[in-house]
Amino acid sequence: MPPFNPLLNPPAYPAERYAPLADRLKRLLGTSNDVVFVQGEAIVALEAAAASLSRPGMVAVNIVTSPYGGYFGQWLERGGASITEITAQAGRPIGVDAVRAALSTLPRVDLVAIVHAETSSGILNPLPEIAALAKAHGALLVVDAVASFGGHALDVDALGIDVCVTGPQKAIGGSAGLSMVSVSARAWDSMAKAAARAPSTLSLLDLKHHWIEQGRGAVPGMPSALEFWALEAALDAVEAEGLDNRLARHALAAKATRAGLVAMGIEPWIDDDNEASALATAAPVPPGIDGDALIANAAALGVSLTAGYGAVRGRLVRLDHSGTRAAFPSVIATVIGYGAALARLGHPVDIGRAAAAIAAAYERGPLHAN
Amino acid sequence: MPPFNPLLNPPAYPAERYAPLADRLKRLLGTSNDVVFVQGEAIVALEAAAASLSRPGMVAVNIVTSPYGGYFGQWLERGGASITEITAQAGRPIGVDAVRAALSTLPRVDLVAIVHAETSSGILNPLPEIAALAKAHGALLVVDAVASFGGHALDVDALGIDVCVTGPQKAIGGSAGLSMVSVSARAWDSMAKAAARAPSTLSLLDLKHHWIEQGRGAVPGMPSALEFWALEAALDAVEAEGLDNRLARHALAAKATRAGLVAMGIEPWIDDDNEASALATAAPVPPGIDGDALIANAAALGVSLTAGYGAVRGRLVRLDHSGTRAAFPSVIATVIGYGAALARLGHPVDIGRAAAAIAAAYERGPLHAN
Amino acid sequence: MPPFNPLLNPPAYPAERYAPLADRLKRLLGTSNDVVFVQGEAIVALEAAAASLSRPGMVAVNIVTSPYGGYFGQWLERGGASITEITAQAGRPIGVDAVRAALSTLPRVDLVAIVHAETSSGILNPLPEIAALAKAHGALLVVDAVASFGGHALDVDALGIDVCVTGPQKAIGGSAGLSMVSVSARAWDSMAKAAARAPSTLSLLDLKHHWIEQGRGAVPGMPSALEFWALEAALDAVEAEGLDNRLARHALAAKATRAGLVAMGIEPWIDDDNEASALATAAPVPPGIDGDALIANAAALGVSLTAGYGAVRGRLVRLDHSGTRAAFPSVIATVIGYGAALARLGHPVDIGRAAAAIAAAYERGPLHAN
Amino acid sequence: MPPFNPLLNPPAYPAERYAPLADRLKRLLGTSNDVVFVQGEAIVALEAAAASLSRPGMVAVNIVTSPYGGYFGQWLERGGASITEITAQAGRPIGVDAVRAALSTLPRVDLVAIVHAETSSGILNPLPEIAALAKAHGALLVVDAVASFGGHALDVDALGIDVCVTGPQKAIGGSAGLSMVSVSARAWDSMAKAAARAPSTLSLLDLKHHWIEQGRGAVPGMPSALEFWALEAALDAVEAEGLDNRLARHALAAKATRAGLVAMGIEPWIDDDNEASALATAAPVPPGIDGDALIANAAALGVSLTAGYGAVRGRLVRLDHSGTRAAFPSVIATVIGYGAALARLGHPVDIGRAAAAIAAAYERGPLHAN
Repeated sequence: MPPFNPLLNPPAYPAERYAPLADRLKRLLGTSNDVVFVQGEAIVALEAAAASLSRPGMVAVNIVTSPYGGYFGQWLERGGASITEITAQAGRPIGVDAVRAALSTLPRVDLVAIVHAETSSGILNPLPEIAALAKAHGALLVVDAVASFGGHALDVDALGIDVCVTGPQKAIGGSAGLSMVSVSARAWDSMAKAAARAPSTLSLLDLKHHWIEQGRGAVPGMPSALEFWALEAALDAVEAEGLDNRLARHALAAKATRAGLVAMGIEPWIDDDNEASALATAAPVPPGIDGDALIANAAALGVSLTAGYGAVRGRLVRLDHSGTRAAFPSVIATVIGYGAALARLGHPVDIGRAAAAIAAAYERGPLHAN
Repeated sequence: MPPFNPLLNPPAYPAERYAPLADRLKRLLGTSNDVVFVQGEAIVALEAAAASLSRPGMVAVNIVTSPYGGYFGQWLERGGASITEITAQAGRPIGVDAVRAALSTLPRVDLVAIVHAETSSGILNPLPEIAALAKAHGALLVVDAVASFGGHALDVDALGIDVCVTGPQKAIGGSAGLSMVSVSARAWDSMAKAAARAPSTLSLLDLKHHWIEQGRGAVPGMPSALEFWALEAALDAVEAEGLDNRLARHALAAKATRAGLVAMGIEPWIDDDNEASALATAAPVPPGIDGDALIANAAALGVSLTAGYGAVRGRLVRLDHSGTRAAFPSVIATVIGYGAALARLGHPVDIGRAAAAIAAAYERGPLHAN
Repeated sequence: MPPFNPLLNPPAYPAERYAPLADRLKRLLGTSNDVVFVQGEAIVALEAAAASLSRPGMVAVNIVTSPYGGYFGQWLERGGASITEITAQAGRPIGVDAVRAALSTLPRVDLVAIVHAETSSGILNPLPEIAALAKAHGALLVVDAVASFGGHALDVDALGIDVCVTGPQKAIGGSAGLSMVSVSARAWDSMAKAAARAPSTLSLLDLKHHWIEQGRGAVPGMPSALEFWALEAALDAVEAEGLDNRLARHALAAKATRAGLVAMGIEPWIDDDNEASALATAAPVPPGIDGDALIANAAALGVSLTAGYGAVRGRLVRLDHSGTRAAFPSVIATVIGYGAALARLGHPVDIGRAAAAIAAAYERGPLHAN
Repeated sequence: MPPFNPLLNPPAYPAERYAPLADRLKRLLGTSNDVVFVQGEAIVALEAAAASLSRPGMVAVNIVTSPYGGYFGQWLERGGASITEITAQAGRPIGVDAVRAALSTLPRVDLVAIVHAETSSGILNPLPEIAALAKAHGALLVVDAVASFGGHALDVDALGIDVCVTGPQKAIGGSAGLSMVSVSARAWDSMAKAAARAPSTLSLLDLKHHWIEQGRGAVPGMPSALEFWALEAALDAVEAEGLDNRLARHALAAKATRAGLVAMGIEPWIDDDNEASALATAAPVPPGIDGDALIANAAALGVSLTAGYGAVRGRLVRLDHSGTRAAFPSVIATVIGYGAALARLGHPVDIGRAAAAIAAAYERGPLHAN
């Protein structure tokens, strides 16, 4: 017999806990829309959102600031929608003007899709401005908030987000195998206009029919009890800390990380604080340095850096400061680890000034989380 | 701060553990085919298998012994395949003759799909015979083994299964948020013939390109560490017990459950032992009894019965004896709980004889698991 | 690297959580006395209670209904107290008259010690009556409530218990590596009369000085975080269920177990319901049956019976129904397992009637716990 | 119902796992002596060692380098031994010459007791030299290795340690609620010479009689399953890493921590590397700084410093680098956190140089653990 491992044989997640769990998410998202659970990682939920909404004749504007945004456009297109794609410079947030201009050229816009914060490059898109534009054009607004939920302010109803896709694995501190989607009444209506299709794990409407309209008991299919228990524990922790405190903690971690980089002589990938994600900071891979070697050298110190994804691969690395990592101990270890790895590769930086700058950032800020 | 909950903040699943984990699954499945991980519950993997294989012009025979089988046909059809559906009587296994006859009427068969054991009604389909027929016709064989893996003999290569979809949540004792699919070389070839499509969580070929062909490091996307750790722990437990011992334990649990039902005067839903699942036994809801009330009365005793799914809903309930439940304590509690709940509803049965029969079945059998 | 095991590296138990945890225990025990934590299993706490209280010249009456009671007397004696021991018949509760008589022969009684419920033989002592006698004689009352806390009513202040030793591992569902002791003001005073001694893990007074009088922050020494987190989780579960509901659940489990034994033709070791523990039922090892073989045969079915301890070893076995085991599924499995094991050894019993009786007991009773 | 917490209701630790677990500890300790488990925190085991060994007429030399050592002497004395105490300067290791001199004045020495490494002040005593002296005098050697096991070389048989007390909660990464003691044959003999006593949790001889001589099945009493499972998981991790690798990792963490302190202008409390613990480094509380304020300021950054214990309280703080903390991320966070907290209190130090020195120490050293 192998040793006892508490991950085995978790108790079934009781049917009567699903609805309260969804309601807690609604409160955290600031919405009275429905929230449904998709039993797969966030990409399943994103593809489901696109597959559920898209239909022939639909006019969609897809804002692309990473490969994930690109996939979203392909999924919309696969469903028959006609797509206008607005693509930002690699690893940069979208400009509001570019979106405004693109929208103004279209006689009608049914849907606008955007990623709130990008894990792949550490950017934050100007969601409030884009939301206002979508509203002005009467378009459904679809937001991928997987990498921002719990770390950036995200008030679904105030912003008028019709479909908001989130996951628990970043700032919420949960597990990645379960996703959550809020859906407005008019988004449900729009989905209902699509032709009848086979049942599909990519159909949010199926969840409406088989879960919400059945009284929100046990989620149909084979829900992973472990994921639901973990989500519940994560929400317990978020509520105990207070969402605002959590947002402030992430903001401070981002600020300290960026201050550390600047102090060591490294310009963060995103130079404008307001365009930077509070969950991860992108730092450049300096010329002449191999990105994979940089990551490997940091890993040898026990410090985890992540490669850029898509077009920015090899050009930047990401310093994660989400969840429990949004605290001084993790921030200082990660920034100094990045600097030490650069130094090992022959690109000396001033580690000492970085350490001092991070300490100073925390000196003036609110404090760490528990 | 909420109390410490070990489900929060699990360590990332290390990149170098994925390939050995897949290889362990290959050994348990008796296959040298590739095994890929789908990061969602089993239904995601089943839809992915259908979506990946189906293409216009494909001739598929879909054997339907539950609603899940029906979905599979719809998914194949959505992909353009031409489907011949062979449907068993509600809650009964398929007859080999019916399949043979159907196949013989078709000039060509590209694919045969079947569910090995049905959770919805507790049946076991005659997989070896169907496999032989598929082979004789040169068809790809697709098997939904989600509810049989670890509880019934399943020798993928010996049976010639091209695509075998499994999940860890039944006899393996793992968590339901992750699925595994074995794919033969000719199944990969067949998938490659389908037209290029957008990337999709439903594309197994994407996993081949982005995981297998990249050296089987970290699974792309956002893998749930909790699910992978839980799967590893489950395989540790299976290997420590020995797969053969685990199969024998499930067989005995089924035998004892059936003996208990018969002894209390209840004919199991499936009368032929060889057609019955080793993981769950279907028991009838006697005439005049309300199935939901039966389940509620058992639940009041702490005994979990599950409603039949699809056409058999209200006609049968399922007594689960998979995983740790495949042991005397759970079997006796479940059978007696079913009987006591019947009695409460005015359908007296001989609980005492059931208890004696279960004890007798275990007296002669191999023993409980750890 | 071995797989992730959530038991490793738990976070430190925060200093500010100890006092609220102690206060929760005070509420559950119905006391305004101090509660201290002893960082070891219950026997450490029991020996500590005796070692802390005993002193030369003290007159103590020790009621012995199991070997543990005997140890307690030896510990008191080691400290210099003069002991009168009142010993019940092996495996039987103490008679109130015997205690009354013994007390009346003594000119002065400083301390009366008793075990509330015995794990070793499944008995319940007449605590309220003994408490009244102790009070009438002005003696300190020391109660070993390790095996009754959470399963029997235990109102420390109403009963006038001066020192109450408890552990979380039975009806509370916690872990056995931590013990809790409530101490009244006059018990503290009495301890203070003992001569100054070296610091000791057996000195409750040290805990008063180094923990209570220091403001009840972190417990001195090296507290096991795992044990404190587990205790907290256990109290969460007790409070969520409600202590009264938990008591009723244990009472019903005892009643059903006893009814099952009687129905199969076995007289429970304790024939009077009021003298039987709600946490475990002792069943006889019939003449001609080997107790160890009985236990081994039940174990082969996955059913756990425990040997009697001390003088009753080989004469009885214990059927545990504490904590999560105080529910129909566990009760029926354990009783039928006992019966089936007897039958295997050539002592046929009517398993069937036992099953029916247990089901009937639950039919009229309150329901299972979660 | 509260959410599922995996710490509740762990499975019982199977009787047949205790002996192999003890044998694994014997291998890690490099001994063929018996190893017994004491079911309480390390202080229980230390007091048990003293209580078991001491007897009237015994001549013991007790080396005191912290309050714990002082307690040990009191416990020996309580048992009747005649004690010669050799006390080091507060917060300093013992000098070999002082021990040699003291031993030479005694006509006979039955026992020498020493703490290997002190958690309270971060020192390492010269164990090999003391062991040689004890051997030369034919004395039993008792070592408190609670704070060194797994972080410092500790070869029990090579050093001739008769009684070695260890705990899993430091370098081993286990839980603190269980302790382990190795006992040589001649130590057992010596214990047997003490007069018969009541059974006691402080009697190691009781464990010999009731556990070892009964075949090393389930430990008597009420073993905490959680603690045993946690110990097993900890040993899995130690063996997977390799004990030598773990020792090297701790040595590097100590070296880097000390280098960081020196670089910021702080002399470590212990100036000689060979006298410093590999598990924790003591740093001074500079003149004019309040130790508690220093700790509170570090805590506000999420960095845990611990107050000195006993005579050094307020004069030093301890930087823990044991277990998973023996790695670059934790070392840098802790040292910079200490420096930043000093700076906040008006004692500026060069944080930057510290960061660079730590990075440099890791650049040349072996790498982090997993």
